[in-house]
Amino acid sequence: MRYFEDFPVGEIMERGPYVVTREEIIAFARQFDPQPFHIDEDAAGKSIYGGIIASGWHTAAICHKLMVEGLLGQAAGMGSPGLDELRWKKPVRPGDSLRIRIETLEARPSASKPDRGALKLRLEVVNQHGEVVMTEVANALFARRPPAP
Amino acid sequence: MRYFEDFPVGEIMERGPYVVTREEIIAFARQFDPQPFHIDEDAAGKSIYGGIIASGWHTAAICHKLMVEGLLGQAAGMGSPGLDELRWKKPVRPGDSLRIRIETLEARPSASKPDRGALKLRLEVVNQHGEVVMTEVANALFARRPPAP
Repeated sequence: MRYFEDFPVGEIMERGPYVVTREEIIAFARQFDPQPFHIDEDAAGKSIYGGIIASGWHTAAICHKLMVEGLLGQAAGMGSPGLDELRWKKPVRPGDSLRIRIETLEARPSASKPDRGALKLRLEVVNQHGEVVMTEVANALFARRPPAP
Repeated sequence: MRYFEDFPVGEIMERGPYVVTREEIIAFARQFDPQPFHIDEDAAGKSIYGGIIASGWHTAAICHKLMVEGLLGQAAGMGSPGLDELRWKKPVRPGDSLRIRIETLEARPSASKPDRGALKLRLEVVNQHGEVVMTEVANALFARRPPAP
């Protein structure tokens, strides 16, 4: 189990890869982001993107999936108040293979609640060409390691 | 069609409602956020939330759905470079009815590209009790209104 103390500032972890399919790009966008360049092959081909691209919110959700499956599932997370920043930098296309990099920017023990601390994490989503397609600065609360008995 | 000029600073629009079902909360979380308090009724009941709550990324995706269906579908949008901030303030639970409020914070014509302008929008997601459950500050590019012929 990974506690607040197990995220030293400057440490960088990597998780993934996750390959994004055309079917899931279209399915996500039909539900949450039904713009032509996400759901319609013909319209997307004529757009500035030259083909279907994933909704930015789909990319963000995949980033979170990799965080949960590769890190939060084995960590003493206590939720997130939110993000300080999110940037969509490059399109994500069918067949792209995405990895995430997680860097601890800040680690601040809570002044009022000694059982927890706040982390500021920088997340980067990187494709198979090494291009950064999305970045986030996220805040998260983690439990502190219980004292040895 | 709504252009850059049609988002005066200070204007507030509302869209929705959208009712969130238990089934979709669990389906979204199984795919992107498989933490016990999002997917497992028993575990969620014993958690600090007292029952299943939606993934924050699901709430963000629903907010975007309401934006696209109620605004971007009839506007000259040219994409978004990202968010300056996102905050998850209250849990979203099965049966909640969500509306969004969209306020234009800033409108800046592009200095280098006279056909477009940048908007800064504040989005609030509000539940049926009037509680703000999520906020965002989003950046978006819109085409300027073409000159009359």
